Amino acid sequence: MNVQTSIETPIPTGERPGSRRVWAQGVLHPCVRVPFREVAVHPSAGEPPLTLYDTAGPYGDPAAAIDVEKGLARHRDAWVLARGDVEEVEARQVKPEDNGHARGRHLARPFKSDRRPLRAKGGGAVTQLEYARRGIVTPEMEFVAIRENLRREQGASFIRDGEDFGAEIPDFVTPEFVMGEVARGRAIIPANINHGELEPMAIGRNFLVKVNANIGNSAVLSAVEDEVEKMVWAIRWGADTIMDLSTGRNIHNIRDWIIRNCPTPLGTVPIYQALEKVGGVAEDLTWEVFRDTLVEQAEQGVDYFTIHAGVRLPYIPLTAKRVTGIVSRGGSIMAKWCLAHHRESFLYEHFEDICEIMRAYDVSFSLGDGLRPGSIADANDAAQFAELETLGELTKVAWKHGVQVMIEGPGHVPMHKIKANMDKQLAACHEAPFYTLGPLTTDIAPGYDHITSAIGAAMIGWFGTAMLCYVTPKEHLGLPDREDVKQGVIAYKIAAHAADLAKGHPSARFWDDALSRARFEFRWEDQFNLGLDPETAREFHDETMPKEAHKVAHFCSMCGPKFCSMKISQEIRDAAAGQNAVADGLAEMAEKFREAGGEIYVEAKA
Amino acid sequence: MNVQTSIETPIPTGERPGSRRVWAQGVLHPCVRVPFREVAVHPSAGEPPLTLYDTAGPYGDPAAAIDVEKGLARHRDAWVLARGDVEEVEARQVKPEDNGHARGRHLARPFKSDRRPLRAKGGGAVTQLEYARRGIVTPEMEFVAIRENLRREQGASFIRDGEDFGAEIPDFVTPEFVMGEVARGRAIIPANINHGELEPMAIGRNFLVKVNANIGNSAVLSAVEDEVEKMVWAIRWGADTIMDLSTGRNIHNIRDWIIRNCPTPLGTVPIYQALEKVGGVAEDLTWEVFRDTLVEQAEQGVDYFTIHAGVRLPYIPLTAKRVTGIVSRGGSIMAKWCLAHHRESFLYEHFEDICEIMRAYDVSFSLGDGLRPGSIADANDAAQFAELETLGELTKVAWKHGVQVMIEGPGHVPMHKIKANMDKQLAACHEAPFYTLGPLTTDIAPGYDHITSAIGAAMIGWFGTAMLCYVTPKEHLGLPDREDVKQGVIAYKIAAHAADLAKGHPSARFWDDALSRARFEFRWEDQFNLGLDPETAREFHDETMPKEAHKVAHFCSMCGPKFCSMKISQEIRDAAAGQNAVADGLAEMAEKFREAGGEIYVEAKA
Repeated sequence: MNVQTSIETPIPTGERPGSRRVWAQGVLHPCVRVPFREVAVHPSAGEPPLTLYDTAGPYGDPAAAIDVEKGLARHRDAWVLARGDVEEVEARQVKPEDNGHARGRHLARPFKSDRRPLRAKGGGAVTQLEYARRGIVTPEMEFVAIRENLRREQGASFIRDGEDFGAEIPDFVTPEFVMGEVARGRAIIPANINHGELEPMAIGRNFLVKVNANIGNSAVLSAVEDEVEKMVWAIRWGADTIMDLSTGRNIHNIRDWIIRNCPTPLGTVPIYQALEKVGGVAEDLTWEVFRDTLVEQAEQGVDYFTIHAGVRLPYIPLTAKRVTGIVSRGGSIMAKWCLAHHRESFLYEHFEDICEIMRAYDVSFSLGDGLRPGSIADANDAAQFAELETLGELTKVAWKHGVQVMIEGPGHVPMHKIKANMDKQLAACHEAPFYTLGPLTTDIAPGYDHITSAIGAAMIGWFGTAMLCYVTPKEHLGLPDREDVKQGVIAYKIAAHAADLAKGHPSARFWDDALSRARFEFRWEDQFNLGLDPETAREFHDETMPKEAHKVAHFCSMCGPKFCSMKISQEIRDAAAGQNAVADGLAEMAEKFREAGGEIYVEAKA
Repeated sequence: MNVQTSIETPIPTGERPGSRRVWAQGVLHPCVRVPFREVAVHPSAGEPPLTLYDTAGPYGDPAAAIDVEKGLARHRDAWVLARGDVEEVEARQVKPEDNGHARGRHLARPFKSDRRPLRAKGGGAVTQLEYARRGIVTPEMEFVAIRENLRREQGASFIRDGEDFGAEIPDFVTPEFVMGEVARGRAIIPANINHGELEPMAIGRNFLVKVNANIGNSAVLSAVEDEVEKMVWAIRWGADTIMDLSTGRNIHNIRDWIIRNCPTPLGTVPIYQALEKVGGVAEDLTWEVFRDTLVEQAEQGVDYFTIHAGVRLPYIPLTAKRVTGIVSRGGSIMAKWCLAHHRESFLYEHFEDICEIMRAYDVSFSLGDGLRPGSIADANDAAQFAELETLGELTKVAWKHGVQVMIEGPGHVPMHKIKANMDKQLAACHEAPFYTLGPLTTDIAPGYDHITSAIGAAMIGWFGTAMLCYVTPKEHLGLPDREDVKQGVIAYKIAAHAADLAKGHPSARFWDDALSRARFEFRWEDQFNLGLDPETAREFHDETMPKEAHKVAHFCSMCGPKFCSMKISQEIRDAAAGQNAVADGLAEMAEKFREAGGEIYVEAKA
């Protein structure tokens, strides 16, 4: 099934090859219905289908009626309203500058809706953090708990084999565990009360490692439909959250289209839009313009804001001798403002005001690393770590106001300096979740930075980073197109899963083992379907061995039938079985061999 | 310039964009002439061009006359003959089974040559190890020393910032250092006396991390020209050695074509051809057939042999309960032979005979890991480590005979189990160089195993692995084509360089810093040309910003002109300079700030 937007751009939807959409229902909250992707395996395997985490939302549900013009169904509104602590308010009026003064044919169509935004009554905190502190298990928390367990039963067997560097991953995630992690700030559930289309997820060191994909138009390129399509495409491949980094005209309208069609949390960098509103002149930014932008975006339903409040005036000189200066857009905008006015950042000075706004909608902080290193040479320098200390200080302020917080991290870091980033972040930021861009482990490969950074992302995810911001092959060179988005998401799904495996996450090993068994048993269709990208795996296989008969062949193109090691290995097992030395017997023989000092071969009894 | 083979397949050759071929001459041996790739930077940068390691051989030299029918020039023959310890012998007669009994149109044309093979006089050891032990600095050793320094002068400044886990990388590589590393077995220079076309290189923990690319036809696909072309293509992208893993017919003739045109060391797995000679029936293998194959390939000039002599009969039962059994082709062939005859491996029993052959040609051992894990589930198990202990035992035997040795390693290993592989290898194998396949850090991504494995390769390279065997996107699925070879080599060049950086190799950081300076200064052409793949970087850039004027634009497509963080960052520097607070002054201000306790901003003196 393909869904068409108004300009006939096909958006791929529906089930993936060999998979079907299944659901699990809440117990505390029967209204909770958690989607999974169930991958069938061939009956010959004698094993159950595999359940995978599914970020595709209604786009992965063949029964869902998708109409981009209307947006997704808003199942979550009922949860929010049931809490009785929010009220409908008059929406802030859309202003010409919200869309960069685009007019006529340059103005993107607005998303049509007469819904009025919700806001906390009486300046209260309607955040998951606040509920968790009060001991309330929200539907969002139960959703997350069910989602993280991948339909494992409590008490069922699993393999825990890893090094978690002090994480406290439970054998089984209960809604109460989620509540506890959110309450102590170790996890966040980005969930704006105005994002009724959301399927909640958690970002925290004791949960599965998550992946963010950036989309967004720029002053140079891109249109509404492209961005909606990229969002749907990114979550189809497994992106857990989406950041809209648009910077050109039409920012407001494009964001509306994206949020109304987006089942994952959506993050933004409000300073980008604020800067557009003042004609791109950083010095002209004011707290008032920024504040208005926060309200605008909070009412639309943005789930987390990147805010570079740690770029303080005194830190800017620390960047002067860097090889690549300040590479964060938000960071450089704020640095320029600070220097121009020779004043402390208004984001830092108004941080408590910002908290007051965000808690009224449950927008989470993603405290931006405006001074992150943009090259190997600048990694782990004084500017970076000075800012990190400030982010830790701000974390406590946000928590005081009941606002959820995660912390952004670098950037470009050689392998031997990665762990220090994680260790310092945990210490400085009181275990608030870490959310890193890469890091890229070398600067020498423009065009391949999804790979240079997947290396660093896998490592820092293993060390404890909760969410990995993807990098596409176009990083440093151009705007990612659809293929780049896919390549970026897949590289990061690999990094995130490799991290889960190495941490010994109890929901991780099933997947590798199911795929490896399929591989060993020449269940080609299963091997394709169990992989991250079934279509590509099949296509690669068929390039060399196109016939349908080859899908059941007990060999592959690498070695051909005579040389196949897996085939020979299976023959060894069969031969051994024929000699009354079945697998158990062979293992016993091996044990005897070891007992005998490993020097002689002890015959199995016939 | 393109060179045509007989069937008009274009082989890309010549200089890379923005680069030129330069040479450095030997001092001890003026006959030594080491090629480098020099990348020009824009005059505005005010910095010298960058010198890069160049594996392309004569194919990267625009002045070289390439004729695939004749093979490359044999500059190294003179070095070998000058030692006076070898003699021409009557070549072993090519037998029909050497080419799998291919006949008529199925038989690949033989490479035409009337050269007679060289062999050590009187059963001596004509190995680099033997010369090193005797205190002889060979031309090969001086070549390697010059090559590793990348035209740095002794005593010149460089950045050493890394964690090397006990490696002993010198600030500057002298020929005597190379000799010392080879003498104690910590490095090898694979250099068969019959490979006169070779440009020597070293594999060792105290040298730059190297990359191997596998090529080779199979019973299912591929032809002579394809394999020669893949070899030229792989070294153009930076492969340091090539393994010919051919398994179909015409193995002998294809190998001849490859070696005669190959400037890098070439490795093979002789058991593959031996098995072809006995009709693909593992049980029919004999020591005599294997021995004859070793002589055949040694005379052709193969530089290293993978030999799975560690797959001992008693270890086979240790694999019985594995998820993926034995996945090494060579390992499974030998396992089947052992079980069928219920005898110890003839490779193990004849190991000293094998050494006697290899030392007469200076073929190096690559002791195969026939019991490597083929899945995450099987990583670091008893079978794998039992074999590793045996490889350590065999290393000492090989050294006794004067034969150079490296050790092959896994495979599929989750991140938290990678370091144990390196540590155990160093301990068990007496610091002989480690040569690993990946390792893949998860099994879930068929079609993307160049990425799953680049993660593990970067890490194990950092920990001390000397050479990384690439994995292409087609791994587990099909035979790599030209594009796959390129993708595999580039992913592994990234891994190898990330490892060099993290180890603090003094020849590593220059590259990243040069590229990052180009990036920060918007020298787009330099950024493209300094990268691993200039053509792709340029193409990606031009997709979004196609105009020539954009090549000098002080912004890029990601943010557009108003939002560019690097531009703003440069404006900050300029503004600071205008306020009499130049970079030095800013740094001073930062220092004062820190001295003042980081709480207040101390104004710079006007």
